[in-house]
Amino acid sequence: MTKTSSISLEAVYQPVASELSKVECDIYRILSSSNELVGKVVRYFFSSPGKLLRPALCLLGASFGRPDWKEAVKIAAAWEIFHSASLIHDDIIDGSLLRRNAPTVPLKWGPQISVLTGDYMQARATLELYRTKNDQLISLFINAGITVCDGEILEVGENNNFDLTEEEYFAIIEKKTASLLSSCIRSGAILGCLAEEETAALGNFGLHFGIAFQIIDDCLDFAGNGERFGKVLGGDANSGVLTLPLIRLLNLVPSKKKSEVFQIFKSHGAEEKLDYLVRLMEEYGTLDYAFEKAKEYTDRARLELSTFPDSPSKQSLLGLLDFVLTRKR
Amino acid sequence: MTKTSSISLEAVYQPVASELSKVECDIYRILSSSNELVGKVVRYFFSSPGKLLRPALCLLGASFGRPDWKEAVKIAAAWEIFHSASLIHDDIIDGSLLRRNAPTVPLKWGPQISVLTGDYMQARATLELYRTKNDQLISLFINAGITVCDGEILEVGENNNFDLTEEEYFAIIEKKTASLLSSCIRSGAILGCLAEEETAALGNFGLHFGIAFQIIDDCLDFAGNGERFGKVLGGDANSGVLTLPLIRLLNLVPSKKKSEVFQIFKSHGAEEKLDYLVRLMEEYGTLDYAFEKAKEYTDRARLELSTFPDSPSKQSLLGLLDFVLTRKR
Repeated sequence: MTKTSSISLEAVYQPVASELSKVECDIYRILSSSNELVGKVVRYFFSSPGKLLRPALCLLGASFGRPDWKEAVKIAAAWEIFHSASLIHDDIIDGSLLRRNAPTVPLKWGPQISVLTGDYMQARATLELYRTKNDQLISLFINAGITVCDGEILEVGENNNFDLTEEEYFAIIEKKTASLLSSCIRSGAILGCLAEEETAALGNFGLHFGIAFQIIDDCLDFAGNGERFGKVLGGDANSGVLTLPLIRLLNLVPSKKKSEVFQIFKSHGAEEKLDYLVRLMEEYGTLDYAFEKAKEYTDRARLELSTFPDSPSKQSLLGLLDFVLTRKR
Repeated sequence: MTKTSSISLEAVYQPVASELSKVECDIYRILSSSNELVGKVVRYFFSSPGKLLRPALCLLGASFGRPDWKEAVKIAAAWEIFHSASLIHDDIIDGSLLRRNAPTVPLKWGPQISVLTGDYMQARATLELYRTKNDQLISLFINAGITVCDGEILEVGENNNFDLTEEEYFAIIEKKTASLLSSCIRSGAILGCLAEEETAALGNFGLHFGIAFQIIDDCLDFAGNGERFGKVLGGDANSGVLTLPLIRLLNLVPSKKKSEVFQIFKSHGAEEKLDYLVRLMEEYGTLDYAFEKAKEYTDRARLELSTFPDSPSKQSLLGLLDFVLTRKR
């Protein structure tokens, strides 16, 4: 995979660093509960924070205008809670062992607590959104939830479908990942009271960025550095999820070879499977192909920013596009 | 267990039968999706309808006033969807095999689809509620979701806790079951534009009724007719959930016997376990005790109705109290 010079998320988040640092506190406030077990799971999960990409996008979107920052931090926190609930539910689904270099919630507390804590977190985030009384924001939030589920269900329905097309793959990742990232930055734009065209442009930026982000995520699942990535590699292949470098591979290999790939893909030996698939992907250049596709989407995202005058916020979003193409985690 | 003459749910639902018959159609409308898999799961789940207790309570509450019936049917459908999502999530949690005499969604489609379809259904129901733009209703709905989760998490946290007190048990069932039933009838009262005291009285009715309902549900899990009950008996004991007849038993048996009961409770042989526990419960009269407690709560519920003039709606709610004490499913 082509690698250009890496930019840090810290640098990208700089214009909203002060607000972003308040998000964690707001997450704990929103999720506070007299239920001790809830408190334990919540503290455990959020003590290994992720990239905070969703709250950062919300705050960066807001930073293009003049938002009520306290309100923006609240909404940013709600997005992170919603996303975290999805991750906890995903970890039941995938049977994943590691998340952010720590045992997953289902591994520590079992599926019962994971399903319920995820539900609880979603309901709490929804209540927080609802309290804004801002129609546009509330609709955006509830609809994002519906679209993400829709995309994830589509993905599961296509598990082990070796005839999955690139087009179908893109439709899935747009729903399950990009729509949420788009909604986050769009919510910021709404909070910043941007003009409708500006809000739409930032929303489109988020959508294209999100697609690129997911493509690279899928590549890293094959060829990343497990330790830095903070999770066990090969997770997608092990749960039967076909992603772009594999879909491309299946389009390129001779049809005879296809059934061999399928056998290996469906087999259990995790590490050998990964080695075999990555070797083939390198032979056929499909990781590079996926990277180029991601680059196309970051180009589209960049284009959406062209009408905005230069500003630290705009530089951040541009930096985010560099980050996504060079990220290792 | 004392059994008085049984009253049918059909008779109880009579005043709102026509509206209730429209709920199913609205459920399919709310959950309609271009996602084929979602459609399949939704059709499968709702093709074996349950007691429709939650929508019926909503409609019965509304029937005390002059609601917009179309709106009331919509909200009734949203409650049933929310409840159904919880059931699907519960079935992952419990590893149940049967629900309404049919294989559960997790058994047919696995945990992935079950988690996601449940999430999808919850999000769709929330959107439907949100569209009413009725603040009281929306808050009621979102908060009910939070309280139900809270109660279920409390319950899981107390799994296999042989020191669980009756007080703790009542706090759990109030949150996980009664609060929802109370919210359903309360939403109907709001839709019917009842006076605040009337809405509160119906809400209290729902709460006491709900506690009685759950006590009897817990008794039926030990001593019901599995086929009529539509699920495999002993589910609570198998997932380590302590309910009233067992808690009472543990308070009555000599402390030496307590550890024997604990061993059997934690053992795997489902049928012998159930036989053993039910024999002891009969010996110590703890199923009767639980039944009497349920009766106390139906008495409290009845009291809440005393200020309402006689009407078919009031008769229905009174009939519901008879139903709950005599139900076999």
